[in-house]
Amino acid sequence: MLENKNTPKTDISSLGEFGLIEHLTKIFTIEHASTIKSIGDDAAVLELKGQQVVTTDLLVEGVHFDMSYMPLKHLGYKAVVVNLSDVYAMNAVPSQITVSIAVSNRFPVEALEELYEGINAAAKKYNVDVVGGDTTSSTSGLLISITAIGSAKKEDIVYRNNANDNDLLVVSGDLGAAYLGLQILERERQVFKVNPNAQPDLEPYSYLIERQLKPEARKDVPKLLKDLDVLPTSMIDISDGLSSEVLHLCKQSKLGCTVYEDKIPLDPQVITTSEEFNMDSTTIAMNGGEDYELLFTVAMEDFPKIKANPNFSIIGHMTQEKEGVHLVTRANTKIPIIARGWNSLNESK
Amino acid sequence: MLENKNTPKTDISSLGEFGLIEHLTKIFTIEHASTIKSIGDDAAVLELKGQQVVTTDLLVEGVHFDMSYMPLKHLGYKAVVVNLSDVYAMNAVPSQITVSIAVSNRFPVEALEELYEGINAAAKKYNVDVVGGDTTSSTSGLLISITAIGSAKKEDIVYRNNANDNDLLVVSGDLGAAYLGLQILERERQVFKVNPNAQPDLEPYSYLIERQLKPEARKDVPKLLKDLDVLPTSMIDISDGLSSEVLHLCKQSKLGCTVYEDKIPLDPQVITTSEEFNMDSTTIAMNGGEDYELLFTVAMEDFPKIKANPNFSIIGHMTQEKEGVHLVTRANTKIPIIARGWNSLNESK
Repeated sequence: MLENKNTPKTDISSLGEFGLIEHLTKIFTIEHASTIKSIGDDAAVLELKGQQVVTTDLLVEGVHFDMSYMPLKHLGYKAVVVNLSDVYAMNAVPSQITVSIAVSNRFPVEALEELYEGINAAAKKYNVDVVGGDTTSSTSGLLISITAIGSAKKEDIVYRNNANDNDLLVVSGDLGAAYLGLQILERERQVFKVNPNAQPDLEPYSYLIERQLKPEARKDVPKLLKDLDVLPTSMIDISDGLSSEVLHLCKQSKLGCTVYEDKIPLDPQVITTSEEFNMDSTTIAMNGGEDYELLFTVAMEDFPKIKANPNFSIIGHMTQEKEGVHLVTRANTKIPIIARGWNSLNESK
Repeated sequence: MLENKNTPKTDISSLGEFGLIEHLTKIFTIEHASTIKSIGDDAAVLELKGQQVVTTDLLVEGVHFDMSYMPLKHLGYKAVVVNLSDVYAMNAVPSQITVSIAVSNRFPVEALEELYEGINAAAKKYNVDVVGGDTTSSTSGLLISITAIGSAKKEDIVYRNNANDNDLLVVSGDLGAAYLGLQILERERQVFKVNPNAQPDLEPYSYLIERQLKPEARKDVPKLLKDLDVLPTSMIDISDGLSSEVLHLCKQSKLGCTVYEDKIPLDPQVITTSEEFNMDSTTIAMNGGEDYELLFTVAMEDFPKIKANPNFSIIGHMTQEKEGVHLVTRANTKIPIIARGWNSLNESK
């Protein structure tokens, strides 16, 4: 659980509630002029212009993460990143977060320090201030609740429900890697159980594992789009898998959609590792989730601005609602897209 | 756990994650013009003027509440109220909350409906919109994370650190009842264990039990103070007990304080029930906690505006830091105030 197994272990009860909070949060610094008052009062005080964007996530040990392959520093980092991803998906800029944890006393202070180091690393990288939170004991396990706050000009905020018929469907980065990273980690855990001395060669899977353990949010995308003078008509982040997110955009914009299988961006490691696991790479990209890429729609007239950009792939287009939501396969057959997500992937293994 | 024991029990997994969230949150309505976008996108979008105030709380089953005497509707209500109390303690007005829950599958959908009814009742009473959240499974028990957002004009926000020497120390309402309410409930639970047919007469303790099970936040105080043309120099809400909060104000304002025992407001039920439990009512008022009254300081010149107001009790005054933090007892002895809170009270029983 701890990166350095020789670190001394301090019982969290030895610091007391206020002492523990003070100890863990002293690493945070304030960088934003919009943070008027941070940790230390009944509430944080902010002064955000334009419109404010608020999103919250709850991560539960044994449900969203497994301590046996998730180092605490990575966990803290990822918990922040997945939350900020939702702010970028509104085409807004996050500026503050609050972090609450419930933790059982099996975690020593040093373990929480690592968690908070990861939180702080993400806060620094994404330039957000940690302005509040709560630290409490739990009867079992670790739970992290993060709320992110950001802002944008009213006219820049992008919702899920404003896509139009014929808009292009665009995705940043590539898909499916995070899911396969988890499969690799799970496989190695099983190997380790049988043979604790096995030295796995994880180099061929380095990208996949990094996408699972240290995902990044697409902070650059709102800026890229602004530089390209493109305002998406709708946007969502890919946390549950492409299928699920396409269906959200369609449902909320009251449209249909056609996605082309051969346009879905895949990293070479996704292709080779899918083959190794005897799984279909498209299924993984469609349903794997945790990619934290951004999926958005743009007007057809923005095509020239987007087409040559290496950050983006045009994977389909919006249609009238009655046409339904479909994937056109490489064999040119049209199959309906249904939301399956993680659970069904796990069941089908 | 359910109020009506005959309610059918629906397994939460039968609805699916999105179905469950939709089912539970459909009762919420939007009342604020500042809520631009509520539940249903990557993030909520708000348009709050002035400065924004943000506070968050995490409530864990078995740590902060006990399902055996806390009906779910009350729990939902209380979870919102304790959070809003922090916003009022900034002299601000709350307008939105997010509500996240992690819940084990031992809770049927109907139980969560009751929880959300309580949340909705508090949202209506305090006029806040529920604009987001997260619903997830937990490996054990119930956990509630609430974030409250409000706003105020910059010049109206009251911090903990601006009290001055000679300021009057004022508290709203009365103290100690919530703690005694918990003692009563705990005693009745023990009686029930021995004799399930016992019909306890709880009437003499009605106020105490209500303060524990259905606390209210002092929404009226910021308004009262405005009407009296009084801007407190510092303010905090009483969640951990008077001692702890007085020490927070002193520490952050770099002052000392003298509190007069005979000025501490006690409800008659607190006095009689303290005697019944053979406990000192002052100790309970100082350390009991969960009163959610507001403790604040005002300039001496505001004395005429405050003195006759039945909502407020002047219980002491601020001093220079070197004078320390003391309670002057009815016997006119001066004893140092130390933070003890719940734990030590429980140990001393």
